[in-house]
Amino acid sequence: MARIELRGRPLPNIPWEDRPRDCGEVVWRSAKNPILTRAAVPNTNSIFNSAVVPFESGFAGVFRCDSTDRTMQIHAGTSPDGLDWQIEPQRIYFECDDPELNAFEYAYDPRVCWLEDRYYVTWCNGYHGPTIGLGYTYDFKRFHQMENAFLPYNRNGVLFPRRIGGKYALLSRPSDTGHTPFGDIYYSESPDLVHWGHHRHVLAPVGGWQATKVGAGPTPIETSAGWLMFYHGVLTSCNGFVYSFGAALLDLEQPWKVIHRTRPYLINPRQLYECVGDVPNVTFPCAALCDPPTGRMAIYYGGADTVTCLAYAHFDELMVFIKENSF
Amino acid sequence: MARIELRGRPLPNIPWEDRPRDCGEVVWRSAKNPILTRAAVPNTNSIFNSAVVPFESGFAGVFRCDSTDRTMQIHAGTSPDGLDWQIEPQRIYFECDDPELNAFEYAYDPRVCWLEDRYYVTWCNGYHGPTIGLGYTYDFKRFHQMENAFLPYNRNGVLFPRRIGGKYALLSRPSDTGHTPFGDIYYSESPDLVHWGHHRHVLAPVGGWQATKVGAGPTPIETSAGWLMFYHGVLTSCNGFVYSFGAALLDLEQPWKVIHRTRPYLINPRQLYECVGDVPNVTFPCAALCDPPTGRMAIYYGGADTVTCLAYAHFDELMVFIKENSF
Amino acid sequence: MARIELRGRPLPNIPWEDRPRDCGEVVWRSAKNPILTRAAVPNTNSIFNSAVVPFESGFAGVFRCDSTDRTMQIHAGTSPDGLDWQIEPQRIYFECDDPELNAFEYAYDPRVCWLEDRYYVTWCNGYHGPTIGLGYTYDFKRFHQMENAFLPYNRNGVLFPRRIGGKYALLSRPSDTGHTPFGDIYYSESPDLVHWGHHRHVLAPVGGWQATKVGAGPTPIETSAGWLMFYHGVLTSCNGFVYSFGAALLDLEQPWKVIHRTRPYLINPRQLYECVGDVPNVTFPCAALCDPPTGRMAIYYGGADTVTCLAYAHFDELMVFIKENSF
Amino acid sequence: MARIELRGRPLPNIPWEDRPRDCGEVVWRSAKNPILTRAAVPNTNSIFNSAVVPFESGFAGVFRCDSTDRTMQIHAGTSPDGLDWQIEPQRIYFECDDPELNAFEYAYDPRVCWLEDRYYVTWCNGYHGPTIGLGYTYDFKRFHQMENAFLPYNRNGVLFPRRIGGKYALLSRPSDTGHTPFGDIYYSESPDLVHWGHHRHVLAPVGGWQATKVGAGPTPIETSAGWLMFYHGVLTSCNGFVYSFGAALLDLEQPWKVIHRTRPYLINPRQLYECVGDVPNVTFPCAALCDPPTGRMAIYYGGADTVTCLAYAHFDELMVFIKENSF
Amino acid sequence: MARIELRGRPLPNIPWEDRPRDCGEVVWRSAKNPILTRAAVPNTNSIFNSAVVPFESGFAGVFRCDSTDRTMQIHAGTSPDGLDWQIEPQRIYFECDDPELNAFEYAYDPRVCWLEDRYYVTWCNGYHGPTIGLGYTYDFKRFHQMENAFLPYNRNGVLFPRRIGGKYALLSRPSDTGHTPFGDIYYSESPDLVHWGHHRHVLAPVGGWQATKVGAGPTPIETSAGWLMFYHGVLTSCNGFVYSFGAALLDLEQPWKVIHRTRPYLINPRQLYECVGDVPNVTFPCAALCDPPTGRMAIYYGGADTVTCLAYAHFDELMVFIKENSF
Amino acid sequence: MARIELRGRPLPNIPWEDRPRDCGEVVWRSAKNPILTRAAVPNTNSIFNSAVVPFESGFAGVFRCDSTDRTMQIHAGTSPDGLDWQIEPQRIYFECDDPELNAFEYAYDPRVCWLEDRYYVTWCNGYHGPTIGLGYTYDFKRFHQMENAFLPYNRNGVLFPRRIGGKYALLSRPSDTGHTPFGDIYYSESPDLVHWGHHRHVLAPVGGWQATKVGAGPTPIETSAGWLMFYHGVLTSCNGFVYSFGAALLDLEQPWKVIHRTRPYLINPRQLYECVGDVPNVTFPCAALCDPPTGRMAIYYGGADTVTCLAYAHFDELMVFIKENSF
Repeated sequence: MARIELRGRPLPNIPWEDRPRDCGEVVWRSAKNPILTRAAVPNTNSIFNSAVVPFESGFAGVFRCDSTDRTMQIHAGTSPDGLDWQIEPQRIYFECDDPELNAFEYAYDPRVCWLEDRYYVTWCNGYHGPTIGLGYTYDFKRFHQMENAFLPYNRNGVLFPRRIGGKYALLSRPSDTGHTPFGDIYYSESPDLVHWGHHRHVLAPVGGWQATKVGAGPTPIETSAGWLMFYHGVLTSCNGFVYSFGAALLDLEQPWKVIHRTRPYLINPRQLYECVGDVPNVTFPCAALCDPPTGRMAIYYGGADTVTCLAYAHFDELMVFIKENSF
Repeated sequence: MARIELRGRPLPNIPWEDRPRDCGEVVWRSAKNPILTRAAVPNTNSIFNSAVVPFESGFAGVFRCDSTDRTMQIHAGTSPDGLDWQIEPQRIYFECDDPELNAFEYAYDPRVCWLEDRYYVTWCNGYHGPTIGLGYTYDFKRFHQMENAFLPYNRNGVLFPRRIGGKYALLSRPSDTGHTPFGDIYYSESPDLVHWGHHRHVLAPVGGWQATKVGAGPTPIETSAGWLMFYHGVLTSCNGFVYSFGAALLDLEQPWKVIHRTRPYLINPRQLYECVGDVPNVTFPCAALCDPPTGRMAIYYGGADTVTCLAYAHFDELMVFIKENSF
Repeated sequence: MARIELRGRPLPNIPWEDRPRDCGEVVWRSAKNPILTRAAVPNTNSIFNSAVVPFESGFAGVFRCDSTDRTMQIHAGTSPDGLDWQIEPQRIYFECDDPELNAFEYAYDPRVCWLEDRYYVTWCNGYHGPTIGLGYTYDFKRFHQMENAFLPYNRNGVLFPRRIGGKYALLSRPSDTGHTPFGDIYYSESPDLVHWGHHRHVLAPVGGWQATKVGAGPTPIETSAGWLMFYHGVLTSCNGFVYSFGAALLDLEQPWKVIHRTRPYLINPRQLYECVGDVPNVTFPCAALCDPPTGRMAIYYGGADTVTCLAYAHFDELMVFIKENSF
Repeated sequence: MARIELRGRPLPNIPWEDRPRDCGEVVWRSAKNPILTRAAVPNTNSIFNSAVVPFESGFAGVFRCDSTDRTMQIHAGTSPDGLDWQIEPQRIYFECDDPELNAFEYAYDPRVCWLEDRYYVTWCNGYHGPTIGLGYTYDFKRFHQMENAFLPYNRNGVLFPRRIGGKYALLSRPSDTGHTPFGDIYYSESPDLVHWGHHRHVLAPVGGWQATKVGAGPTPIETSAGWLMFYHGVLTSCNGFVYSFGAALLDLEQPWKVIHRTRPYLINPRQLYECVGDVPNVTFPCAALCDPPTGRMAIYYGGADTVTCLAYAHFDELMVFIKENSF
Repeated sequence: MARIELRGRPLPNIPWEDRPRDCGEVVWRSAKNPILTRAAVPNTNSIFNSAVVPFESGFAGVFRCDSTDRTMQIHAGTSPDGLDWQIEPQRIYFECDDPELNAFEYAYDPRVCWLEDRYYVTWCNGYHGPTIGLGYTYDFKRFHQMENAFLPYNRNGVLFPRRIGGKYALLSRPSDTGHTPFGDIYYSESPDLVHWGHHRHVLAPVGGWQATKVGAGPTPIETSAGWLMFYHGVLTSCNGFVYSFGAALLDLEQPWKVIHRTRPYLINPRQLYECVGDVPNVTFPCAALCDPPTGRMAIYYGGADTVTCLAYAHFDELMVFIKENSF
Repeated sequence: MARIELRGRPLPNIPWEDRPRDCGEVVWRSAKNPILTRAAVPNTNSIFNSAVVPFESGFAGVFRCDSTDRTMQIHAGTSPDGLDWQIEPQRIYFECDDPELNAFEYAYDPRVCWLEDRYYVTWCNGYHGPTIGLGYTYDFKRFHQMENAFLPYNRNGVLFPRRIGGKYALLSRPSDTGHTPFGDIYYSESPDLVHWGHHRHVLAPVGGWQATKVGAGPTPIETSAGWLMFYHGVLTSCNGFVYSFGAALLDLEQPWKVIHRTRPYLINPRQLYECVGDVPNVTFPCAALCDPPTGRMAIYYGGADTVTCLAYAHFDELMVFIKENSF
């Protein structure tokens, strides 16, 4: 089999740690975890489930920072190295012409995607229920809000980093109004990032760590073999939800067609900072960086809905793992 | 106050019965109820929640006919007078190029809307969960299926009979995967009937007969004072859901703005054919006919998820009632 | 065993019908059932779960009349014979000095009790949840509202018709905020009808028709052997609650001590007007009249949360039945 | 295809009515329905879900007669013609050596099966939860109780009328402690009617009218093509369970292998006595008689958990229907 | 704005630690946390949610000590400094004349209040469900039980430390029979500590950390600006309840009128001893001490339903925080 | 009272640690806990709820090793000392003639029992739901699968180590299809380990730590005073289930008769490895070793559904504790 190519721009300053790993471990944690805690922002309850992208000579990101009244909010931040972050003390204020759309209820679980000429942000946006908010920024200082992509109730909206078949493409997970006990990943298209259609089913829960629901994580990563999509899965124990994450490979031109999908998880809650916190037993990825020349990958994920963590993988190893451990 | 004008084409052969009414009754039942029972179609469990439009010199419609294995299906039918119906014994087969889209799971609660040059059908379509199916016919013989309007989970998709602000417009009620215990009405727009956006919240439950959820019923009716929308509301008793219906008046150009909304219901389950059947205590409207010159209105509604019923109103009386009995 | 004496004033004009009965039937239905339907009040959805007392030369009562927006309300009414009723078209307006207390949310399931010098009304009163409203009238025209007897969440408050041990006495059934799936009857005392204490447990669910919850019905009736309390019991079938009613005999001076309690029900939903309506399968008694000289008893009960019904019993037969069919 | 043979003894006096039927109706109701109501037994709440067998020159049966305290009980009865019944006023008293086993909690939904030399009765027996009680009678006067066949929680135990592979054979539906929202049919074997093993899965819910749970009905009927098993299926509407019934054909020697299984139901709740009662919308078969020479079949089923009903079929027609309408 | 005065007796020996705090932290934890663990009492599962008051030259308290059979019990204890405690090994035995009242079911979450001439204890008392037990002691050796203040189901009964408008005053939170998913704080009055009335609604859940339910914590503290009430609030995550606490200021004479109420919490579960234990993620205050001359405040709270913890605040800082961070 | 004799073969190499204990602690933890973690098996998520027996000169066992796809599996292992284990990297493959029976769904919570001539394994076996799988081995290398003992849904099947009354004997806990919120222990008998009957109720939940459900743990241990059965009990907190364990003494010849049953637990979740993991707050015993000459006992239990732990007791002390602390 030909070697699979990891596409995209080089990222030589990607965070990286070579560490000893456990047997079979293809994604390994940073020794610095958690890399971000509530100490990073004044009057903050927690900082987690956040998105990071290369920006200028370093990195920028959008961070979920629940306030001490437990309002879910997203803040901008920048970092020279992806590890040390300056987080804005105020939540992002989106500029928007329509006051009804712009009325803030809550915002959480952001993703950031460089697409054509700017950074798009998607997040879970409160509009009479959770739905997929959509906005953009050029500089992580000013942010513009667009129309919500979908009707409520929806979460985990993730844009593809280029048009597919000439259309913008978006993954999402339709939900209900509460702690949804079901959830599949769907694919939708748009000519203009406002109107969405051609909805296709992508991935359903299948048992094990991904028995209750699944949702897309970081912006999909283009490879010569398909789109690499990290995704979280939820298992319902007698004491609640457990969030782990794995990976899938989606067809490049018809991303609703699944080529591979890991049967085991890549990361599950094992460390104290993943098992203890506002929501015990959560590992939830929202962003991944990669450096194609070296194959280095860095995955940002939330721990226990309380802190932000980092894990690493090597692209080639990961591809082998996915192929050998999929349904 | 100026008299409100009922817009649209005359319909001199609209079904009509003048009957004595109870005190305060502004919508009254046909003496022929139920006008359609399972006897109308071979091997059918029930026929209800169905849509009727003027067609050629008479009427045509799309009917929910659950089969005796309790599969939810929609059938075409025609009638010279709106009362005596010939229902096709086979469910509608939609022509469609995409086999994934066309794979039949189930179809129910149709609405039919004459829009520009053809009859559009919307229905609750099974695609990995309930969503809004969209198709059209010119002749009620051949039907074409388009893309589903939305991601699952959605029900009660109702098209407006003309473009608004240059866009197609659609009401719907996002749901969950089961017997949804919540539900608001939303408004969405499309340039092409494929991609939908600009989602706006229209109507939420408010207590009483409309405490648990609300959903649009027949195609909205244009008047000089706004869009007349009949809608069902659900109350949850200790023994389950009770479906009644009322009416609202929506802004002509910004239909997500509610001008009036009835505090009392117009029809609630009172007759044996509404209180006893596959789902006790349901009155569920899916179509309304009107004759502007006379103000006669005929509303088709399902009874107890089992039979099809007919009720009448006079437009002028109804407008007075709505104004005097709204929030 | 000595004959048990039925205490109280003669009521020679008590409604009465001698009718053939089924084997073992000790309480039998009126042939005129339902004696009150929504036709009795304009714009009313239903009239049920209502209380009746002797008043002047005839009868008066307080009636639950849900409006056509499904707001729960109570109305006053009068009747020469207990069968033909004039119901006030407007809900009762209670005079009250405290505007917070008097803010109307909803009122339902009233009981009326002649106590010392006036008619007291208790009902389920909405005050940040259901609790026991308390008021009085001298003439069924003007009504005065007192303090709610208890904290929410409570229903089925029933006063005793005289002080016990020098204190006012009240039965009630603590609840939760919804369609409560549990419920016992408790006894409370008050020196002033404002402050209540000395709470004692009276009756718990015991299986069968009274497996889920129990609640006091009409004002207890004094006999030489104890207080005769009709009470409803609820069984939960796979299709919801079923409300039947039976009777208990409580100690005269310590009414929280139960002397007898019927194992079988006296009335359960059997007639179409009890089995079909807004809440199928409900028989719910709120008032009983009796004529000590003849032993005639007339019990008013709601049917299917929709209509008002009447049933009869003969006191001596009933006492024998209670003794022979109790736990 | 060769004609399928209905095996067993002739039953020339089987109840029978030739009646006009609706289109496609292969099982039709008796004009005398309900054939048994609470009037058949003193102080009884309802009589339903009962079993009938040929006995001496007429018929005998075991009947579920809930008492007026809503205790579930089974009574014996006899009839000359299968329509007019003498029901014992007292519940069956089972003789049994083990007092713990014999302690009566409740008994319901009996089946009766002639097997080798006696009539065996199986029923849902309360022993720290519902399980399968097992007993026998020679004369419908004295009944002997054996060991419960299974651990709780189980319902709908149905014996085969002869040994299979030398073992006694029993169908059942494992349950939970309440109104079980799941349920499959299983097959078990025993050398001695005391110890049971070799449990095999037979039938799972499959959607439509049989989406929530399924349970065996009458004693399976032997044919040359397999065991004919009528079974009930449950659909969960927003207002509760709906019980219909269909039929399956099981392999003669390995009855856990399903040859056919009807996609449509044979009978569903349509008549007032099936839709209104203690549990609305129930048709529940517990016994079937057949006369091989004529192919006449009579099916006893409960209506609305309140009354006992009768339906008819012709064997040859039924076999054709099953073959043409199965999965 | 004038400085707010903290009223009450000086308490120079109040526990106190000056510690570095996080940004924005106005209430800070003791370095000695948890100050009490199960080691404090033999055969005890846990010691938490307990009340402390100044007593003689030191301190006394009533402590929730669940036994190793997980029976909820309250024990008395004394301490010279509020940190080192001698807990009685046996649960409190209340003297009481009425055996029914005195029958012990369970006792938990005590509060202690010096009122006029003695120490009153309120607790969650099992009497056919949880309600508010009321008793008193002069010496923390002998305890007397009075009538339960309310009907079940109620928790978190908290007395005011002086009469208001001549009446005793009590806060409580009506509940249901289980892990109640709702809950508001109410105010009630009594002339005699036996009969209670004049019930008024005080505080409802409002989202964020106080979205599911709220309940009063320590005895309200009198200030010149109103009653300072610490209260817990509950948020429901997908993995259960999270208990934090904040503060409110209530009108001095009409304490059901809320002047301020913190939007952020003061303390939420962050430390391992708050996040891990019998109930993860609980911080639950039951007592507060204060020293008016210095403004020092010490708050006792339970951690994870397992241990007892201590936190500190300075009155003036706290008042500023409350004013600047309230709704 | 005569000293109770612990029966069985000496086990001089039983794991043992004498450690200081807390007041009242009769069962104490190993200082080496957890003795087994996921590191013991490659690609394993967790290793817990496992069974150990003496084997040859050391020990052997069957271990629950959930894989990293969260499939529940059982593996064999051996150890020279009961502390250091070699676990087979592949799950146990059972030889079996019937392919339907042998189709692997999942396997968990094994017990191992030496009975007559071989080691029997019982486990929770997936066969259209959880039931009791039964197999045996002579050497812990080859395993043979027998018929499932019961119909689904059942868990915690535990064999007695000798026939009782000539029959094989098995404890089990009937369940439902999910995270069962109820559960009693039952006793069943078999002549051949295939067919089971004579089912008797043994133990029901009784409140406290054993309020929700109970289930047998290790193979019962024979003593002169009865069978010593360790069993787990579950309490439902607002944040889920808490698993503790206690002990009971069952009659030697009629083991469904309970002689003693501890009111307190012996072990409950207190250590971080018991409170934090895939299921917080679980201590779940599956095996116990004992050395009659010394009275030493070693109990293997799972911690937090993640790791395997060890605790010790001395038989004589334990017997005294059970007698003095039982219902």
